Amino acid sequence: MKNKRKIINDPVFGFISIPNEDIYDVIQHRYFQRLNRIKQLGISSFVYPGAQHTRFQHSLGAMFLTSEAIKELRLKGHEITQNEASSVMSAILLHDIGHGPYSHLLESTIIQEVSHEKISEILIEKINDELNGTLDLAIKIFKNQYPKKFLHQLISSQLDMDRMDYLRRDSFFTGVVEGEIGSARIIKMLDVFEDKLVIEQKGIHSIENFLMARRFMYWQVYLHKTSIAAEMMLIKILRRAKAMSFAGETLFASPSLQFFLSNEINADNFLKNDEIIEHFVEIDDSDIISAIKVWARHSDTVLSVLSKNFSERILFKAEESERMTEDKEMELRKKYAAHFAVNQQDADYFFEQKEINNNTYDLEDDNINIVFSDGSVKDISQVSDILNPEILNHGIRKNYLCFLKI
Amino acid sequence: MKNKRKIINDPVFGFISIPNEDIYDVIQHRYFQRLNRIKQLGISSFVYPGAQHTRFQHSLGAMFLTSEAIKELRLKGHEITQNEASSVMSAILLHDIGHGPYSHLLESTIIQEVSHEKISEILIEKINDELNGTLDLAIKIFKNQYPKKFLHQLISSQLDMDRMDYLRRDSFFTGVVEGEIGSARIIKMLDVFEDKLVIEQKGIHSIENFLMARRFMYWQVYLHKTSIAAEMMLIKILRRAKAMSFAGETLFASPSLQFFLSNEINADNFLKNDEIIEHFVEIDDSDIISAIKVWARHSDTVLSVLSKNFSERILFKAEESERMTEDKEMELRKKYAAHFAVNQQDADYFFEQKEINNNTYDLEDDNINIVFSDGSVKDISQVSDILNPEILNHGIRKNYLCFLKI
Amino acid sequence: MKNKRKIINDPVFGFISIPNEDIYDVIQHRYFQRLNRIKQLGISSFVYPGAQHTRFQHSLGAMFLTSEAIKELRLKGHEITQNEASSVMSAILLHDIGHGPYSHLLESTIIQEVSHEKISEILIEKINDELNGTLDLAIKIFKNQYPKKFLHQLISSQLDMDRMDYLRRDSFFTGVVEGEIGSARIIKMLDVFEDKLVIEQKGIHSIENFLMARRFMYWQVYLHKTSIAAEMMLIKILRRAKAMSFAGETLFASPSLQFFLSNEINADNFLKNDEIIEHFVEIDDSDIISAIKVWARHSDTVLSVLSKNFSERILFKAEESERMTEDKEMELRKKYAAHFAVNQQDADYFFEQKEINNNTYDLEDDNINIVFSDGSVKDISQVSDILNPEILNHGIRKNYLCFLKI
Amino acid sequence: MKNKRKIINDPVFGFISIPNEDIYDVIQHRYFQRLNRIKQLGISSFVYPGAQHTRFQHSLGAMFLTSEAIKELRLKGHEITQNEASSVMSAILLHDIGHGPYSHLLESTIIQEVSHEKISEILIEKINDELNGTLDLAIKIFKNQYPKKFLHQLISSQLDMDRMDYLRRDSFFTGVVEGEIGSARIIKMLDVFEDKLVIEQKGIHSIENFLMARRFMYWQVYLHKTSIAAEMMLIKILRRAKAMSFAGETLFASPSLQFFLSNEINADNFLKNDEIIEHFVEIDDSDIISAIKVWARHSDTVLSVLSKNFSERILFKAEESERMTEDKEMELRKKYAAHFAVNQQDADYFFEQKEINNNTYDLEDDNINIVFSDGSVKDISQVSDILNPEILNHGIRKNYLCFLKI
Repeated sequence: MKNKRKIINDPVFGFISIPNEDIYDVIQHRYFQRLNRIKQLGISSFVYPGAQHTRFQHSLGAMFLTSEAIKELRLKGHEITQNEASSVMSAILLHDIGHGPYSHLLESTIIQEVSHEKISEILIEKINDELNGTLDLAIKIFKNQYPKKFLHQLISSQLDMDRMDYLRRDSFFTGVVEGEIGSARIIKMLDVFEDKLVIEQKGIHSIENFLMARRFMYWQVYLHKTSIAAEMMLIKILRRAKAMSFAGETLFASPSLQFFLSNEINADNFLKNDEIIEHFVEIDDSDIISAIKVWARHSDTVLSVLSKNFSERILFKAEESERMTEDKEMELRKKYAAHFAVNQQDADYFFEQKEINNNTYDLEDDNINIVFSDGSVKDISQVSDILNPEILNHGIRKNYLCFLKI
Repeated sequence: MKNKRKIINDPVFGFISIPNEDIYDVIQHRYFQRLNRIKQLGISSFVYPGAQHTRFQHSLGAMFLTSEAIKELRLKGHEITQNEASSVMSAILLHDIGHGPYSHLLESTIIQEVSHEKISEILIEKINDELNGTLDLAIKIFKNQYPKKFLHQLISSQLDMDRMDYLRRDSFFTGVVEGEIGSARIIKMLDVFEDKLVIEQKGIHSIENFLMARRFMYWQVYLHKTSIAAEMMLIKILRRAKAMSFAGETLFASPSLQFFLSNEINADNFLKNDEIIEHFVEIDDSDIISAIKVWARHSDTVLSVLSKNFSERILFKAEESERMTEDKEMELRKKYAAHFAVNQQDADYFFEQKEINNNTYDLEDDNINIVFSDGSVKDISQVSDILNPEILNHGIRKNYLCFLKI
Repeated sequence: MKNKRKIINDPVFGFISIPNEDIYDVIQHRYFQRLNRIKQLGISSFVYPGAQHTRFQHSLGAMFLTSEAIKELRLKGHEITQNEASSVMSAILLHDIGHGPYSHLLESTIIQEVSHEKISEILIEKINDELNGTLDLAIKIFKNQYPKKFLHQLISSQLDMDRMDYLRRDSFFTGVVEGEIGSARIIKMLDVFEDKLVIEQKGIHSIENFLMARRFMYWQVYLHKTSIAAEMMLIKILRRAKAMSFAGETLFASPSLQFFLSNEINADNFLKNDEIIEHFVEIDDSDIISAIKVWARHSDTVLSVLSKNFSERILFKAEESERMTEDKEMELRKKYAAHFAVNQQDADYFFEQKEINNNTYDLEDDNINIVFSDGSVKDISQVSDILNPEILNHGIRKNYLCFLKI
Repeated sequence: MKNKRKIINDPVFGFISIPNEDIYDVIQHRYFQRLNRIKQLGISSFVYPGAQHTRFQHSLGAMFLTSEAIKELRLKGHEITQNEASSVMSAILLHDIGHGPYSHLLESTIIQEVSHEKISEILIEKINDELNGTLDLAIKIFKNQYPKKFLHQLISSQLDMDRMDYLRRDSFFTGVVEGEIGSARIIKMLDVFEDKLVIEQKGIHSIENFLMARRFMYWQVYLHKTSIAAEMMLIKILRRAKAMSFAGETLFASPSLQFFLSNEINADNFLKNDEIIEHFVEIDDSDIISAIKVWARHSDTVLSVLSKNFSERILFKAEESERMTEDKEMELRKKYAAHFAVNQQDADYFFEQKEINNNTYDLEDDNINIVFSDGSVKDISQVSDILNPEILNHGIRKNYLCFLKI
């Protein structure tokens, strides 16, 4: 850092200091810089125009909260070495490095079955190679292969600094104040018990509040009807583009997006093929958005109708409903086929059902453990009196019919 | 207003305009101005030093939110005349006018059995007399004697603007961010159905969030252990002072506080006796605080020990516990009697049990009704899937033992 | 609006209501929707990663503040009809409609000599045609052809709601709290005098504060050295791309960006040629960003070096300096030519001088007039005792040398 | 601290940790606890009802900012030992310990010529005695007798953490957002040069902004016309009460306030007489407020009229004016004497002139030094181009006539 301490202005947490040169090098890496071209909430800016914040900012914020958590745990007597601290911070910085643009959509369209977690692992290894192994320990912690398991939990668990940051940040930028969580208070309540992150007894209400705020953000933002509909529309567009590319059509797209449209990518070849990786890190929100605007003028009815509407924010409509019967489905298919003069198979591009599931708290994931003054440790779903454990653990399912209004 | 529009700077809501001359006169009235000498949260500033805000500010804030709610309801087609609007605003401004200093404590010590609601009614009538009847309609609404019942609900119900303001304001000044409620969103969701305030279906999660935030504020602020202990200590001090005054001792106190210490005040004489009222509106936080500092040097052990400790913030300790057995109680009594060389009766001033009850939502009070798109109306406790209805409706009881550490 | 009142969540001002159907139609127009793909601060997100907010949000915010200003002026007795109010709001919504991506850069590269103000006028006329003339009055106000001149000043003057919003908003999203202006207080101080917007005497300090905050934002954000350097780099890239296109090379670009790269566009043909307009409204940030990433792999050294560095945030460095002598310039030219093995003409792409000028307050623009209690009106630069009128009126010039570090 | 880390919730800075047991003992001391009964802004809550915050909170906030400044200076390589750090924090915690209620008023009425700074020194010595000398170093730093002079500057200079906190805090609680200073940025710009606190060159605009925000707070809050008038009214009341007490009248007052009303207190006897000190630490806002309400019913016209009006917020009016001629003064005197049927000497209690002086920046005080990259150091008033150095250094004087409206 050539004797310069770097500080980044963050509207959520104020000034964020970059703690050392190794971390500075990670942030400067082109794989990390590209996160500043990928919106954290993808399509949500259609509903919340303030939600333009990027994965870059989120990753820095998560690093900041991790440094706060480390300070707290050290004050409570838990040893965390300089190297461990720096490595956890690198690991959380990089936890989202495998996200592509509109990540969850990509994963169900052009790069099927390859999870962003898996891609993260590959990219971190590559960065580590370039940085001469400074990330060795970070990788161990990231993969949960390091003895002090609680360090991994800071980056991935029900209490990780990832969700502490994203809830506060998404709440801040959407303007949905109800999502405000008391991240500072929760961090003050953190402790380690038998190598696991736990929350002190007096923090029970903070955790209840955190789970409710998270639930609120799910319904109000992440699973907002209009967002679901817009996502479905984008999925349809990308599927159509991929189908056309496979059929030999050359659509306008940046070379790397082109590559994903015209090749079968799966978990198997993705991991083994450097060319795929190199194309992957080239694409960001701009490639998708820029291409769709061009596709709006394509001669293919399906592609152009969907793309034009999407670009002009004439989105699918989402209606909560029972699962469609086959009869109903056929009826819709015929309606769209007739309206747009396309065949029945292509008519399917204009509507889709989507089941969503809001798990406020997922037992299959890690637990949130509360440590009591008598030394016992219990799961929050057992000790909260106000939250319905049935719902807390099993979530809510809803079925939506998404369709283009005609 | 002599051609001047009055605007008051409020750190919570920005600028609050005083809408007309009648309301300006209410705010200028000496009964209302005294609220600027009475802290909203009484004793809580011992725990949250930021919580110095007064009932004056809260009343203005509640008036502001009421004006917002009126705007919203009018937009939804509900007729509210200028006079009705002004009267609801006057009514909410005055809803707390009957509070004395450390109100809940006074009510259980020096002015037994007279509720602040009843006092409010009397004081509003008196102000109305002075203002030549401009509050006639406000009084009808306040007493729920006006046909449009929903107007009364704006000032007193589960969804009233009183709690909308106090939750936001108390959260703001204590710094307990988890108490932040989405008051603006809730107001946007307000509607009137069969002359009752209801919440639109899509506001269910906002209401759940509101109830949880309220619950959080109860545990974290209003029923904070240290606050309960400090309150108990203040009750003991005032009871001792009253007992001594009744026994003929003249303690230092402002004449009006003096009056309450040396006279039996109850619901019966309070309401009929103008002298009592005149003394009541003279006392505020300063009379209590100023007197207790002087009592710290009194020769009576009980009074001076409690007063000195209270003034120096050496507060009772509160411990959650089972209800004391009589044996345990006698044991404590003997201990304190021996320690302070007082008789056993007086020893009781040094400890007390206190049962508290946190009702997140009280069915006995009004309901929070949700109106569905099919026109049906249901209580929130029936339609929330996440909140445990048992707890929601019956609350939590805890027993505390409060005592002076020796 | 089909009986639906639209409300938009804004992190800066809370809920923003869309006041009527005409304005709703403007917001839904594809020309307006594209503003949600154009960042308000362009390149600044390289320095302030939070600054991802778009011209869409800014325009809505400015509309909101205009509605507040209208309320205030009406309270002060100035008549503003419903139609005038709606038209001013439409006009300010559309005031930035002529901006392209990285607007100031485009104006000095691919669409030379066509100001965004002029483009705005054209686009507003086109929208008005589609909306059957609902914008007739808005256009008159926008062009300052309407008798009530103060309405135009709300959308364009030293006190316009445009800068009230952008200062607050840019301050909010960059996290530069010093740019916070008291927009609410300034609006409360607004008045109209002889058909001009003026500020009441007691608002002098608010205006001084506003001018200082604006100045601060200029130095800290708008004219931040690193932003200037990044802008210069982007200008160089676009100039190179245009030069190559003119020389017959076909670069990767969306068709509309392509069009601008390969055609001479000037004020003259822009205004007369619908094809140009249609291409113009197609391009946004994504076209530029997406293309530059592809250009990073081009065989042309100048284009690829600049594009690759830009994409990876290896930006030009800016150093404050005297204007270069010709000798110094030649020296640099030779250095870069040698380093990159390009001819001396092409070497000029790697460095440039840039003079910037921070006019806190520009007399050539409108004045900020203060109205005194004796009825006299004076310019703020005459009545402020603290601000140096010399600097206030003439600004500061600085010369920067921007160059690629080698 | 019995193994407990103490944390205090602060609405301005979030959680403030008490760093060690010595500092905890200072905060628990009764002299310090009394600051929680003394409002930071005294009379200003008449104008800004939110401004109820106390000197207790301000002192904690200043301690917090000092800890931030220490972190920053250490990062820049300046050695500050644990003991030095703890002592500076104790010193700033205690810097305002000598303030009484409505401090500046008391100093010009009942305890003439004894500055709060001098009282602070005495009280700190007394606390140090009780705490067995843990404050020895803090006292040296406080008195500027410690070699590292820059440590003293953190607690008392143009850049001290005292004003960093009070500007932010007063801005926060009054709701005057324009007073918001970038305290975090200024602290990041702090450095030490030749044993003096300096600001890095790039911080010039932050300092300009800080001086302007401070100036704004002076005009809008500290020197608000209504506050000046209310202060003058309170001075008159206390002077009358003192005059009557000296004349043998026994007014209602707490014993300690009584003591100050009936004894001549000056710098000489104050410092030597423990009894005076003991009375001094007993009085706070409540003694003044409580007494004035009682005085409102006194038979003395001057005392009762002023006290009644003050209690009901019927304040003096302040009008900016030339200094009164003797003729004008005599005229007023006669008018009030006639109106209230008092003698001409007593009529003087109903009006007064007051000259105020707003020094944005006082060269007689410390300088604010800017250190340039070439190592030179210059005063901000020499290097700011925008701020008028004449005004910056000499301030503005205004004359007000304050009087009771009759």
